[in-house]
Amino acid sequence: MATRDNLPSWKDGAAKTAILDFLARVTKKGGAEFVALAERIATFDNDGTLWCEQPIQVQGFFLVDRVKQLAAKDPGLKERQPFKALLEQDMKTLHGLGKQALLQLGFATHAGVSDEEFDRIARDWLGTAKHPRFGRLFKQCTYQPQIELLDLLRKNGFKTFIVSGGGVDFIRAFAEEAYGIPREQVIGSSVKLRFEAHGDRTGIMKLAELNSFDDREVKPVNIALQIGRRPILAFGNSDGDLAMLRYAGGGPGARLALLVHHDDAAREVAYDREFRLSPLAEALDKADQHGITVVSMKNDWNTVFGAAGA
Amino acid sequence: MATRDNLPSWKDGAAKTAILDFLARVTKKGGAEFVALAERIATFDNDGTLWCEQPIQVQGFFLVDRVKQLAAKDPGLKERQPFKALLEQDMKTLHGLGKQALLQLGFATHAGVSDEEFDRIARDWLGTAKHPRFGRLFKQCTYQPQIELLDLLRKNGFKTFIVSGGGVDFIRAFAEEAYGIPREQVIGSSVKLRFEAHGDRTGIMKLAELNSFDDREVKPVNIALQIGRRPILAFGNSDGDLAMLRYAGGGPGARLALLVHHDDAAREVAYDREFRLSPLAEALDKADQHGITVVSMKNDWNTVFGAAGA
Repeated sequence: MATRDNLPSWKDGAAKTAILDFLARVTKKGGAEFVALAERIATFDNDGTLWCEQPIQVQGFFLVDRVKQLAAKDPGLKERQPFKALLEQDMKTLHGLGKQALLQLGFATHAGVSDEEFDRIARDWLGTAKHPRFGRLFKQCTYQPQIELLDLLRKNGFKTFIVSGGGVDFIRAFAEEAYGIPREQVIGSSVKLRFEAHGDRTGIMKLAELNSFDDREVKPVNIALQIGRRPILAFGNSDGDLAMLRYAGGGPGARLALLVHHDDAAREVAYDREFRLSPLAEALDKADQHGITVVSMKNDWNTVFGAAGA
Repeated sequence: MATRDNLPSWKDGAAKTAILDFLARVTKKGGAEFVALAERIATFDNDGTLWCEQPIQVQGFFLVDRVKQLAAKDPGLKERQPFKALLEQDMKTLHGLGKQALLQLGFATHAGVSDEEFDRIARDWLGTAKHPRFGRLFKQCTYQPQIELLDLLRKNGFKTFIVSGGGVDFIRAFAEEAYGIPREQVIGSSVKLRFEAHGDRTGIMKLAELNSFDDREVKPVNIALQIGRRPILAFGNSDGDLAMLRYAGGGPGARLALLVHHDDAAREVAYDREFRLSPLAEALDKADQHGITVVSMKNDWNTVFGAAGA
């Protein structure tokens, strides 16, 4: 079932072979490594694994536009940090803030609306906002080889999940359209929520307080909490994914842990340990030790972005 | 598709009609109340809604047996409260503790093992433990009309979830076998977890600290966090489910909120507001006001328990 034709955007090589061999083994009925359908769980990081995260994560651009809206009502905001750096897209200052501080800024900015209202705001933005370098809609900055892999996994009975450090509500606004992954299969960073009831009208309000920063060791913890099974395949691209890759790789039977290495300056961006918001260093250095397959964007992918919007 | 024959254990009457009419409306293509497949989310409470919760929740019996194991190693435990009351099945003292205190006792007793080890312990227990009054395995104390309803919902494109005050790991140990609900579609109370890595061996340790008590207003909050959609159907049996029923009922379009009323002393147990561990009072009093359909176990169900183990 898992023939090479199912992954046309993957070049023949060690990474593609590792994927196809793994699929053949876990789906072979009566085989020593056969995995029951219910256990075929695959978890993917989002930023840098399924779509572009440079020069900052897409949610950062969304945040800039949200802060602009707020600054139109409160002009003093433009002079205060970190809003000033954000509005001026001062990357040095933004990178210096670190990923969690940026997320918390995002959460504070996104709070005070219901989850359903936030979804409409995010969808509206995603419907028109374009990447400054690639000139296509952000939601079309997804990686074609990964779309093919997600499809192939589902054709082989896998349930595919996103497990991201990004905000869960933001990812849910496009994951179904972009990746075929339904809202309930998205795990991400989250704010605290409050149930509100006014007569017959009920809903969920987003609060300006972090609930879970879904990064590093928190990824396997949230997988255990929300999925309740250890994945048999996990795919990431940064040190923030290493715990998830080791969790997936640490169970019995056939396992596959993969890491995108962004080494393709011509078609995307070449970066790893110097990207302060989400470095790839320890995971790359210890990939062999932990049995992680490194996927070179340059050498393992025929295509980076899909045709849509090109 | 949703014919009366699909619910043989439901008597003809207002409750069955409400269910079948709702299903006909949300699945009618081109109809005014048609609901897209992705939005067909149904959430069910577990204890008292899908299976028996008397004289105490099933997890309470499991807890007794776990404490007995621990007491065999530490005999002093037998003389200390609340272990003494638990071992003597002193219902008055146990009920006086309240549901959250009992859960916390449970979490403390269940901690210090990995989630995968806990799953094996729970499955072993569920494989042999029997209900003291009904004389059948606890996992066969499920309600046959609800099994039929869950199946019918799935045949109509619904994703069915459990949203329970009970411990999520305990429910996951039987939900797939008993209800056809996979582990990742179970939301429940949870302890804090820790990712552990020792060389190639990795796993998730259960800690003796409450993470989320999934009751009352926390149910809609955890639904929003983990499912990310407002259910269009919710089914409960106690005041602990009222917020979830109002959440499901409070959105646009067709909605169905249901409440099991345990009024059948002959076939099961008759109780509502006096059951201290999980009372049904406010939800019953305000059912009309909130558009909640009350299901009488005595009058709406032909059968209570299924044939298995009878």
